[in-house]
Amino acid sequence: MPIFVRYHFAGGEHYGLLEGEERVERLTGTPFDGYRTTGESIPLSEIRILPPCRPSKVIAIGLNYRDHAREFNLEVPKEPLIFMKPASAVIGHREPIRAPTMSRQVDFEAELGVVIGRTCRRVTREKARDYILGYTCVNDVTARDLQKRDGQWTRAKSFDTFCPIGPFLVTNIDPGDLAVQSYLNGELRQSSRTRELIFPVEELVCFISRIMTLVPGDIISTGTPSGVGPMVPGATIEVQVEQVGRLINTVVEEEGSEAS
Amino acid sequence: MPIFVRYHFAGGEHYGLLEGEERVERLTGTPFDGYRTTGESIPLSEIRILPPCRPSKVIAIGLNYRDHAREFNLEVPKEPLIFMKPASAVIGHREPIRAPTMSRQVDFEAELGVVIGRTCRRVTREKARDYILGYTCVNDVTARDLQKRDGQWTRAKSFDTFCPIGPFLVTNIDPGDLAVQSYLNGELRQSSRTRELIFPVEELVCFISRIMTLVPGDIISTGTPSGVGPMVPGATIEVQVEQVGRLINTVVEEEGSEAS
Repeated sequence: MPIFVRYHFAGGEHYGLLEGEERVERLTGTPFDGYRTTGESIPLSEIRILPPCRPSKVIAIGLNYRDHAREFNLEVPKEPLIFMKPASAVIGHREPIRAPTMSRQVDFEAELGVVIGRTCRRVTREKARDYILGYTCVNDVTARDLQKRDGQWTRAKSFDTFCPIGPFLVTNIDPGDLAVQSYLNGELRQSSRTRELIFPVEELVCFISRIMTLVPGDIISTGTPSGVGPMVPGATIEVQVEQVGRLINTVVEEEGSEAS
Repeated sequence: MPIFVRYHFAGGEHYGLLEGEERVERLTGTPFDGYRTTGESIPLSEIRILPPCRPSKVIAIGLNYRDHAREFNLEVPKEPLIFMKPASAVIGHREPIRAPTMSRQVDFEAELGVVIGRTCRRVTREKARDYILGYTCVNDVTARDLQKRDGQWTRAKSFDTFCPIGPFLVTNIDPGDLAVQSYLNGELRQSSRTRELIFPVEELVCFISRIMTLVPGDIISTGTPSGVGPMVPGATIEVQVEQVGRLINTVVEEEGSEAS
């Protein structure tokens, strides 16, 4: 199971391969288009990790954990309920989540993210895995007050920095029964397993690709288990997915700037 | 008011400047990054028109026409209600809208589209126009049955081909009082003016840029007036915006294909 990391080092952006837990071998090319190893490696501690891909879109799923549905006595949905987060919301491991002045409650939501490897449309469940390059951790950050007020979830889910992903892109693993957890300031807050997913990964790729063409780097975020809750500036939030990694971000207050 | 058109000709993609109503002068560069005229022109009838830009995201607005709100006795919203359409849904002038097998009612919605010219975040209403490059026509195609069934609008608004834009990118016009109309099979179905917008263009740029960074080519679709309705395969739908153009598409039945 090769583990890829995208990073910034010495003025350039690269993909690398994780060697053990502490070193990264630089690659030429990308895991999407083909790559070669270079033999050059550096300590993981010396690089700045970037989001593992640049999604053109992030498709996320509403209520998709059986245990979550049971907890709230909610009916199990018959079809996946999808929503989107824009590319402009994506940040990487250790980048700050900015709590917007427009909201009074910003929640974390730990999720397994599926990274699309090849362009696809109308994929069958059986062939879905052929189009998946790998997996990453996603924090589906949500302004809960605005989600309730608007009815539509777009604003609540789309603020800049509201889509931390990473740190790694992990390939060749079975997504069928992985632990998905979150820790707020070091304290366990969410804990479930992907076997509790109402619509598993293959079903989601099939369903979504019947609606829209998926392209390399697009992410499907598979939904969050129970235990979501608010984060305040100063908080550290960790999304941990078994075999996939541990995505760590801190929350800061928003600062304004007109243009760049 | 220079009018730009993006097009495919002789194996390449170009931007051009409309000369009168029938010719296009090829440009080098783009209206976003700077361009030069070449002195070479060809008849409009010989080019294949492409979408006038490649939006990273299309932000659309729910109920935003006063006359529409009056007609349905709906309360005028206090803030814009936003939703998104993915880049994968974008098609150009004369490209077919594919009616998906998943839906039994596909509606047209004629809208004025705002094309962002410069990256911006937290723009004031007063400075909003500085970040707008121009305007185009948008058809916010919607699977009305799925919109009602899901509650969230994402699926209903996001099918491939559900975001026709074009044909032109028109700059240096005042968006404050333009006629917005649609014609289904030649028959007028929607007709209003942008002075009826509850949240005008500048207000939308201000509001949305407080949520998410807008980048060049992003589109804000400003909402649709009353009179929306279904289109069936074989139908021709035209979105006409005064001074901006006339976007024509036909509806076909969906055909499947797994990957590309």
